[in-house]
Amino acid sequence: MSGTVEEAADNKAETAKIWPPNIQAVFKRMAPASRYLGLEIIAADQTARTVEVAFNAGPELCNMWGGIQGGMVAAMLDDVMSLAVGLDLEWGQISPTLELKVSMLNAARPGRIIGRGRVIKRGKSVGFIEGELLAEDGTLLATGSSTATFVTLKRKEEPAE
Amino acid sequence: MSGTVEEAADNKAETAKIWPPNIQAVFKRMAPASRYLGLEIIAADQTARTVEVAFNAGPELCNMWGGIQGGMVAAMLDDVMSLAVGLDLEWGQISPTLELKVSMLNAARPGRIIGRGRVIKRGKSVGFIEGELLAEDGTLLATGSSTATFVTLKRKEEPAE
Repeated sequence: MSGTVEEAADNKAETAKIWPPNIQAVFKRMAPASRYLGLEIIAADQTARTVEVAFNAGPELCNMWGGIQGGMVAAMLDDVMSLAVGLDLEWGQISPTLELKVSMLNAARPGRIIGRGRVIKRGKSVGFIEGELLAEDGTLLATGSSTATFVTLKRKEEPAE
Repeated sequence: MSGTVEEAADNKAETAKIWPPNIQAVFKRMAPASRYLGLEIIAADQTARTVEVAFNAGPELCNMWGGIQGGMVAAMLDDVMSLAVGLDLEWGQISPTLELKVSMLNAARPGRIIGRGRVIKRGKSVGFIEGELLAEDGTLLATGSSTATFVTLKRKEEPAE
């Protein structure tokens, strides 16, 4: 490994500039739930509609046996798939998850977990996404699929008195 | 409402005595991930194989729009379904989730969320569970189903030299 921590941070900020607006927004102001999961964005490809992230998973994500709780594995998959489908949202649009399905193939332990998300279809009002989580040694930990909808937020209007 | 906080805590401890051993264990030493979700056990019925809990959901579970992140809704369902299937585990057994499917029917907001879990089938090595989350006003927020397996933990043995 070469370079200082400061250089690494600079490189990261430089890379971030080419990310799509929605991914940049996450980079600048991460959601509390994503912060808890230890989310770190590695790459985003708007054309291919793929995202690669890492989850730096600490003991706070664990069950009583020191493994990452199944629900938190599901939350990681939801997070990376939501990022993927968010790649070409319009400004003012959000993409809440409607359905989420997760298969847990191997026990996930605290540490660095790689997450990949890929949009299978981006329709007008619905998107279909796939995701996977891998341990640092390449072991496939979990796979997931989700369905999201696209909602355009309305501006708040004053209620009529 | 009547009674002091101390009385309420006493009543809770009294109720807890009739819970099955696995549920008592969770009451005594909650997993970090369950604590983050704000888990509180309300009732457990070993004969009916049902569990009722509350999740006291704070802003730390939220997305950037102040709603509870979809993944955390999934984590709540996994938690309550895991408790249900854990009702008649033998000592030394654990029940990791294999598959989890969640339908998100309405946006979940921070506050008190009621969770219910019910074992549909408890086989020899696999269990099937259903769960649901409700807002305090009774609105159905999400439903889930999961498949869990039963694993008997081995005692650690010294490696042969």
